[in-house]
Amino acid sequence: MMPETLRYHRKEEALEVLDQRALPFQVRHLRCRRASQVAEAIESMAVRGAPAIGLAAAFGLALEALHAPEGLPEAAERLARSRPTAVNLFWALERMRPLFPLPPEERAEKMLAEAETMLEEDRERNRRMGAFGASLLPQTARVITHCNAGALATGGFGTALGVLRAAREQGKELVVYADETRPRLQGARLTAFELFEEGFSFQVLCDGMAAALMRTRGVDAVITGADRIARNGDCANKIGTYGLAICARHHRIPFYVAAPWSTVDPATPTGDQIPIEERDASEVRRMGEERLFPDAYPVWNPAFDVTPAELVTAIVTETGILRPPYEESIAGYGKNH
Amino acid sequence: MMPETLRYHRKEEALEVLDQRALPFQVRHLRCRRASQVAEAIESMAVRGAPAIGLAAAFGLALEALHAPEGLPEAAERLARSRPTAVNLFWALERMRPLFPLPPEERAEKMLAEAETMLEEDRERNRRMGAFGASLLPQTARVITHCNAGALATGGFGTALGVLRAAREQGKELVVYADETRPRLQGARLTAFELFEEGFSFQVLCDGMAAALMRTRGVDAVITGADRIARNGDCANKIGTYGLAICARHHRIPFYVAAPWSTVDPATPTGDQIPIEERDASEVRRMGEERLFPDAYPVWNPAFDVTPAELVTAIVTETGILRPPYEESIAGYGKNH
Repeated sequence: MMPETLRYHRKEEALEVLDQRALPFQVRHLRCRRASQVAEAIESMAVRGAPAIGLAAAFGLALEALHAPEGLPEAAERLARSRPTAVNLFWALERMRPLFPLPPEERAEKMLAEAETMLEEDRERNRRMGAFGASLLPQTARVITHCNAGALATGGFGTALGVLRAAREQGKELVVYADETRPRLQGARLTAFELFEEGFSFQVLCDGMAAALMRTRGVDAVITGADRIARNGDCANKIGTYGLAICARHHRIPFYVAAPWSTVDPATPTGDQIPIEERDASEVRRMGEERLFPDAYPVWNPAFDVTPAELVTAIVTETGILRPPYEESIAGYGKNH
Repeated sequence: MMPETLRYHRKEEALEVLDQRALPFQVRHLRCRRASQVAEAIESMAVRGAPAIGLAAAFGLALEALHAPEGLPEAAERLARSRPTAVNLFWALERMRPLFPLPPEERAEKMLAEAETMLEEDRERNRRMGAFGASLLPQTARVITHCNAGALATGGFGTALGVLRAAREQGKELVVYADETRPRLQGARLTAFELFEEGFSFQVLCDGMAAALMRTRGVDAVITGADRIARNGDCANKIGTYGLAICARHHRIPFYVAAPWSTVDPATPTGDQIPIEERDASEVRRMGEERLFPDAYPVWNPAFDVTPAELVTAIVTETGILRPPYEESIAGYGKNH
């Protein structure tokens, strides 16, 4: 059974955070009763995925209003520092801020209600995205996904995995191939966990095996999430996505991105303006307690790459499916909302 | 300093085998005085790489002739069983077999001399290959390689890495990017070891990062070895090579294969006839002592993939550089030799 990523426990007045560092071997929860504990859960990567981080932060503020309301502004600052690159985090904090001046006797309850609404909205958004995306898949489909764009990265249901969940609910027969996603193995550890818990037919493969899979077994679609989408449709996502998109194009396999509109950044004209974080070499050099090679060997470890719009067959959002030219389909949305 | 893969120790009458399981953390040798010990070193992957295995087997027979000549035919059978897929192993055993009937007083010395000749020939072949291949690289070059096609896989100098060694000897300035090569990490552990020991400028990267490297930093060439080359030029090599070749083509980067003529199998018309070994899932699920994900998660773990000839810019051999159409350039060699 799939555990919930985030759950507010009314009786205990605490946020239960699924500790994703312990997955897939252990389903363990952290109980957060203060914003600082939520911030630590984000920093330590107990909770990850931009939508999930934003939601956790909203609950963090609600908890602070409940347990120590005088510290609310400092709590917001503390949370903002916990993962400065996550746009959803600031979005969530800004959405809660208008409630700070409410009278103390109703503030905590209102903030809690708002956080719960945001969680529910996120799940609903993912379900709508899933329904749109599922229509892109044939009745019987072999699908590759990369990293984890699942329930664990969101309030529930997921973006790319949400599309697969929705397709299965519609009676489609899927075989899912989960790229392990080096260096942090979110595919092998988190996506595979979700697929196993829900009884999907799936296999884990190393990232370098995807091309051979396309050539020898046949693959009907590739679907991933996105961390940021530029105005022209260039998509930043977990490192490895770009090579996968190139291989999909080479085999004439559609490459889909599933992401909510909040992922689209109209302030970024193209993927070239998206800053790519380079992370610590130890992520590549070590696997848990195991040293793979000496610290003296230099490493290149970018966390993300950019897939140019021309390799993206369609972008699945909660309001429908965007097709190229994305410059127009994205601007069209902007005009109507 | 780069240790030798194989070295015959005259005084001790033993073959010193570099134990590659201990690399890159420890330079440790096995001393083999009997063919059975060489067979065990092959089975346990202390020595690996088709050319290196063949050479080790030749020394194994010479040692048997020295220490226990009555067991020579059984020793050959024992060695043949040690890695039944390695074509070079059988080739080496067949080359030694005509010496079995020699008078006992000269047999051991002749067999030893033959093994040493084979080792020297292998190194010489790799040096010639290197000189041809180096001419393909510009004066300043960023080069990606995959798996280990280096001194460690051969009698010395290497095939793909031999080309890079030769280019450096010619005064070319190289930056080498070593794909870590999941699941067994021969790139991060063996290729990086060679590059570090010889003072190359290099970085290790995860396999899924190569495409982003091509796009963001610029790469001048990709060069790999091969395990088998079909008559039409299709190349079987370590899993991950095919996707790398597709990404190279997408970025208009030349993709070179360096391999001796013994790798070309005229009995195999195309890559479709090359059997692809699927290896145990534990290679993907574990890293040394570290369990990465549960045994219940199914895994796809092919050891090799096939890069079709149309993605191969040139094949570097010890007699020169083959260009497409390979059907013709390969047949042309057959006619002349």
